[in-house]
Amino acid sequence: MPVKKPKQKQTLSEKITELLENNQDYDLKDLLNDQYPQDIAPVLENLKEEGKILCFSLLDLENAGNVLTELSSETQMMLLKTLGIEKFSGIISQIDVDDATDIIIQLPEKEKSALLKILPDPVQLAHVQELIHYPPESAGGRMSTDFLRLRSDMTIHLAFNYVRRQAAEYKAQVHYLYVVDNTNKLVGVISLRNLICAPPNDLVANHMSTDILTCKVTDDQENVAKTISKYDLIALPIVDEENTLKGIVTIDDVVDILNKETTEDIYQSSGISDKFRSDELISGKVTYAVRARLPWLLITLAGEAIAALIIASYDKTIISAPIAVSFMPLLSGLSGNVGGQTATIMVRGLVTGDIDLKNTAKHIFHELKIGILIGAICSLITGLIAWLQHDQPVLGLVVAFALICSIISAVLLGTIFPILLQCFKKDPAAASSPIITTLLDILTFTFYLVIVSMSLRYLH
Amino acid sequence: MPVKKPKQKQTLSEKITELLENNQDYDLKDLLNDQYPQDIAPVLENLKEEGKILCFSLLDLENAGNVLTELSSETQMMLLKTLGIEKFSGIISQIDVDDATDIIIQLPEKEKSALLKILPDPVQLAHVQELIHYPPESAGGRMSTDFLRLRSDMTIHLAFNYVRRQAAEYKAQVHYLYVVDNTNKLVGVISLRNLICAPPNDLVANHMSTDILTCKVTDDQENVAKTISKYDLIALPIVDEENTLKGIVTIDDVVDILNKETTEDIYQSSGISDKFRSDELISGKVTYAVRARLPWLLITLAGEAIAALIIASYDKTIISAPIAVSFMPLLSGLSGNVGGQTATIMVRGLVTGDIDLKNTAKHIFHELKIGILIGAICSLITGLIAWLQHDQPVLGLVVAFALICSIISAVLLGTIFPILLQCFKKDPAAASSPIITTLLDILTFTFYLVIVSMSLRYLH
Repeated sequence: MPVKKPKQKQTLSEKITELLENNQDYDLKDLLNDQYPQDIAPVLENLKEEGKILCFSLLDLENAGNVLTELSSETQMMLLKTLGIEKFSGIISQIDVDDATDIIIQLPEKEKSALLKILPDPVQLAHVQELIHYPPESAGGRMSTDFLRLRSDMTIHLAFNYVRRQAAEYKAQVHYLYVVDNTNKLVGVISLRNLICAPPNDLVANHMSTDILTCKVTDDQENVAKTISKYDLIALPIVDEENTLKGIVTIDDVVDILNKETTEDIYQSSGISDKFRSDELISGKVTYAVRARLPWLLITLAGEAIAALIIASYDKTIISAPIAVSFMPLLSGLSGNVGGQTATIMVRGLVTGDIDLKNTAKHIFHELKIGILIGAICSLITGLIAWLQHDQPVLGLVVAFALICSIISAVLLGTIFPILLQCFKKDPAAASSPIITTLLDILTFTFYLVIVSMSLRYLH
Repeated sequence: MPVKKPKQKQTLSEKITELLENNQDYDLKDLLNDQYPQDIAPVLENLKEEGKILCFSLLDLENAGNVLTELSSETQMMLLKTLGIEKFSGIISQIDVDDATDIIIQLPEKEKSALLKILPDPVQLAHVQELIHYPPESAGGRMSTDFLRLRSDMTIHLAFNYVRRQAAEYKAQVHYLYVVDNTNKLVGVISLRNLICAPPNDLVANHMSTDILTCKVTDDQENVAKTISKYDLIALPIVDEENTLKGIVTIDDVVDILNKETTEDIYQSSGISDKFRSDELISGKVTYAVRARLPWLLITLAGEAIAALIIASYDKTIISAPIAVSFMPLLSGLSGNVGGQTATIMVRGLVTGDIDLKNTAKHIFHELKIGILIGAICSLITGLIAWLQHDQPVLGLVVAFALICSIISAVLLGTIFPILLQCFKKDPAAASSPIITTLLDILTFTFYLVIVSMSLRYLH
């Protein structure tokens, strides 16, 4: 019962630790083999190395395989080294081809080729060797080769019996059955549900749908995820340039893809490099996190150092109007926020497809109107505050005017930057908020100090 | 072919506009009924009102239903008013109960009760009347009542024939078949695939799994989504307190839930209220977007106005050391970024479950170490820049010391704020970056100006 999960998980971790400490291997084995692999893996990750190895070795072969796919690559590598390649390949042979490939693909070259040599199941080996050549983030890298093919000239009865036999034997996905011609080209698809409902003596050809959504092996995984989620599919066939059926991606993979891409986008937008793994950032080495976070900070540092130079060159203005200086953080903070909001809406809209590059002008114009309205409201309030705080109407005017200009710059920068990246086929999320806020700081301060200098005679 | 989708969609929109302009209703009808509802809906949304009404009325009854579920609530309401309640209820009766409920639930009270009175299908009506009482974001509000129940004492043969008949007749989901006792309590589950593979004369009881993951009707939809994605399920049964089977949520709903929750989280983290709809923010009224964005900006404005007051009170310090002022944006920008990064990692970790509240101290300590390292690197660089730019070693020291302190405050604020919100059962994403950066600005500037004042005799 998921409502009880957090509690059960807590006790699971405690139970395992207790049984480990008391050397109750027999009870531990029973406990472990009675759990979902998704629940064991996180507990295992938190154990010391000996604990990990002992618990893992107590798992039945199939459970071991399922737990292995849920573990971090470091733990997988450690287990490979400890168990030996022979035992490891036996476990690998228990798991789905796509999951097996995901594990094998990240092994060091030596271990990879050693493992491929001794994989016991020749069918699995052939599939792994095919899948291993696709980039991991492509449709080909994501697809499974565990699926059933039918021929259009089969009768429903024959097809059904074939499916029954195959499904009992393999782990194949059977939500949809794919119909191919004699050169393995995809010609139709029929759901298991429609297969069982169709009259037994009819031909498959009469009940299959020929209007099939597909993706190419070379497509990006994000494309696959978008197609499956847009059209509410359970699985999507992946074909090559000749429309030969190469594999399928199922919707549970899409959930993983979406989660991963979301984390990447969220990280990028706050200036964390998207090449780093989120679990490592949270509980890995400190230097790992620093490497992920420092690059954007150094860009900010460089930008703000330029801003510092510009501000320093206005030292006479600052001495003459120190009160004006006190509003600089307000200008910078507000325009930074507006720029961040705008970039977030643009990036998210481009990712979900709500924003269409064809309507660029429309989107820029829309954001511009929002910027003018927000700028007007904020400038009015800020202007009044500046005036009343220091009893200087001119200060109010100067601050208000600088603020509306910098908010308008912020919406323009926040709109145009992501669109430009998308046009140049870069990830729009790279237009992350640190870059926008730093650029805005330079712009805003320069402009502000220029107009403060020009108004000096009216300020005190 | 999804690879051609963008192009096809482009032509679809243009084709429809062309056929509309030339009054070629017959061709238009053919074209529309040949498309996926997911492709028609966005084109329809962009048409003028007459175009929307005409296109919609050209759709066959079933297509109309499927397109209706994809349209915005404004367009749905407009169609209801134009078509009349009679015709509208006929279309509603074509769609799945959960989608129908989603449409009905958001109608104004008068239209809602009028529609419920005339829904033609009594079974659908009964289900809608049940579902309508669950909050839309609960498991109950998300579930569908279209699923098949078996009894454990049925033979496989009997069960199979029952499924065949039912599946042919209803739209029921048939990936899993749920086994209930005579009081409708959930006792087991069997996949369609296992059903067809089992020997016909065996009992369902011998082939069903009794180890069933479920959620309660009152659970939050995020719980449902997490369970389904964690355990790679296609569907999850939803039960009440007595374990009576009330409905199921399928994985395609999870994809929708995840997309929606992600957008909310991303928006919140950059200071956009999560109660607003993303499509409306992108292309709706300007005032709508302003209402979503202004609240956080006003909070920033208030915070920065306080910062301005504090800075203004140090006017003598500013006059004495104008160069020191030039580094204020650098302090604010860098610590703001670090705080934003930290908050992002914490919020995302809490959402995905990678961060466990039980290990709070561990996470704070981990972030603190990262903050010290990042702070040391950035302070060293910035200190050197300050020293060399202005040939003042003391300025370098002062800036470096203030920067490391403000970066450490930033990681602490970015870590503790989301954890506190989570502890008080609030959405941690509400610890959005604008609040953190504004608080940091106040802290940083106060501290910096204090130490600059104290070092004035060594600065020039």
